[in-house]
Amino acid sequence: MDEFQIINKYFLQKNLGSGVILGIGDDGAAISHNSSSDLITVVDTIIAGVHYPKHIAAEDVGYRALAVNLSDIAAMGAKPRWMTLALTLSSSDDSWLKGFAKGFFELAQEFNVNLVGGDTTKGSETVITVNILGEVQKGKILKRSGAKAGDSIYVSGTLGDAAAGLFCLKELQEPFLGSKKFLVDRFLRPSPRLELGCSILNSASSCIDLSDGLYADLFKLLDSSGVSGIIEMNDLPISKQIVEVIGREKAVYLALSGGDDYELCFTSSDDFISESDLKVTKIGTVTNGSGLSCRLNGSNFAFHSQGYRHFS
Amino acid sequence: MDEFQIINKYFLQKNLGSGVILGIGDDGAAISHNSSSDLITVVDTIIAGVHYPKHIAAEDVGYRALAVNLSDIAAMGAKPRWMTLALTLSSSDDSWLKGFAKGFFELAQEFNVNLVGGDTTKGSETVITVNILGEVQKGKILKRSGAKAGDSIYVSGTLGDAAAGLFCLKELQEPFLGSKKFLVDRFLRPSPRLELGCSILNSASSCIDLSDGLYADLFKLLDSSGVSGIIEMNDLPISKQIVEVIGREKAVYLALSGGDDYELCFTSSDDFISESDLKVTKIGTVTNGSGLSCRLNGSNFAFHSQGYRHFS
Repeated sequence: MDEFQIINKYFLQKNLGSGVILGIGDDGAAISHNSSSDLITVVDTIIAGVHYPKHIAAEDVGYRALAVNLSDIAAMGAKPRWMTLALTLSSSDDSWLKGFAKGFFELAQEFNVNLVGGDTTKGSETVITVNILGEVQKGKILKRSGAKAGDSIYVSGTLGDAAAGLFCLKELQEPFLGSKKFLVDRFLRPSPRLELGCSILNSASSCIDLSDGLYADLFKLLDSSGVSGIIEMNDLPISKQIVEVIGREKAVYLALSGGDDYELCFTSSDDFISESDLKVTKIGTVTNGSGLSCRLNGSNFAFHSQGYRHFS
Repeated sequence: MDEFQIINKYFLQKNLGSGVILGIGDDGAAISHNSSSDLITVVDTIIAGVHYPKHIAAEDVGYRALAVNLSDIAAMGAKPRWMTLALTLSSSDDSWLKGFAKGFFELAQEFNVNLVGGDTTKGSETVITVNILGEVQKGKILKRSGAKAGDSIYVSGTLGDAAAGLFCLKELQEPFLGSKKFLVDRFLRPSPRLELGCSILNSASSCIDLSDGLYADLFKLLDSSGVSGIIEMNDLPISKQIVEVIGREKAVYLALSGGDDYELCFTSSDDFISESDLKVTKIGTVTNGSGLSCRLNGSNFAFHSQGYRHFS
């Protein structure tokens, strides 16, 4: 099976939705875009053995490759529309490709994003780069840089689950049942918070998605905004499942420092009330100055994390 | 040096040009796009040791990673505007990154395309994916699928040089001087034919860029158009340098089958006259039917090539 057969067999969508003039099969794709919206472009690469354990199912790899990119689109308050996929593989394994495409398109269909182009190449390891084009109401973007002193800091969902799930995948034996299954699924199948991103477009002053861990990512948001912040440790949303598997103390540590949450962290001057089924929790306050501190029962709590950094 | 330092040190452009609302440094980039044009998106990956010899200079790698993508934009008749770069490296070598960025931005500035986003990751080999967004006059695109029986077939530049240059790089000893230097440079520094692509937007019936070799790529164009074609072997544009280094017979073979030309091949019912300094040569005719044949001195010339295919 060569690259053209792979594309034809696994990656040609029948219905490319509105706006696509030309999809896969030419030198490039052509899109008709309505200028009442601004365009958002995001790109993320995941590598086998670096961003996920090599032994996880192809379906989960496909799902995850798209989910981490959709999370970036969510953090901009945008709607995903079109995407390209650059897939580097060491071999063209039929069942792997079938699984990958299944997981990938399952999520794509859920959020109505269409694959318009791609490149399939042979390398020595699996490297997957997804690039998404999204649309956002003209003049409105959720940046990292708008947080103001006095704003409240919010996060969606619960934190640390994915990092605990990755620990289970790496260190424990299958089968994963009950709470362990919940945590493993939180790593394998992150839920991009696209609905939330759109719903806070007018009320949030800044937003970031959590990929490197709450502390590291919130630090970046505050730094971009030129302000500081305080996290109330007791307010961190922590699932009962993570506490059950690794205990409360480690769970709090992972909630602050664990990567791969793909939840949204945003600031707002409003008392934010969840409009959807998704839980949104106030976890702290934006203050004047610089840096990020943590507070536990009214006292300062020493915590330092850099988050995950490539090459460091 | 971690990923954020790499981005800040090598890949932040001061001036992002018109239309960029938000560049590198947030979850995504935001672009304001004028709807009088359609958008073109292209993506191509190059891998060290697969698409180019591992020992070539970082500057040439940077230049080439962008050039092969710009060539796709040219083949659509579009103008490049914005791009993202997904860079997977095994280590953060300062002098390599400096060289890569130099070659990359040298070409970017020549064609006024701005880097708005990217991702830097650590893997076991160098994998570079560039994604470009371009603009083309609304309703006008150079597709592969418009060739009609009776059209003439044209190519830009000379063919086979890059494949001969790759042979020199792999098999011969440096220094490369004279004709060998010309060929090596044709591989290392392909010239994306963007000006030509725009200039034939109204006169060409179809277009493709030559990456897998003339025969294989023209075959794809004819197949997309539902027609057949004849190549006149004596009319193939061949440089005096390639003849000097490998002889005429091998040069003709590489002109048909060698990859990495990054010239444009297009069809037109017009008698096409070169409007720029770039030589454009009529090499054959579109006919009814299917397939592609070659003719030498009035007789059929047997030639079959699949072009380069990953995984085959």
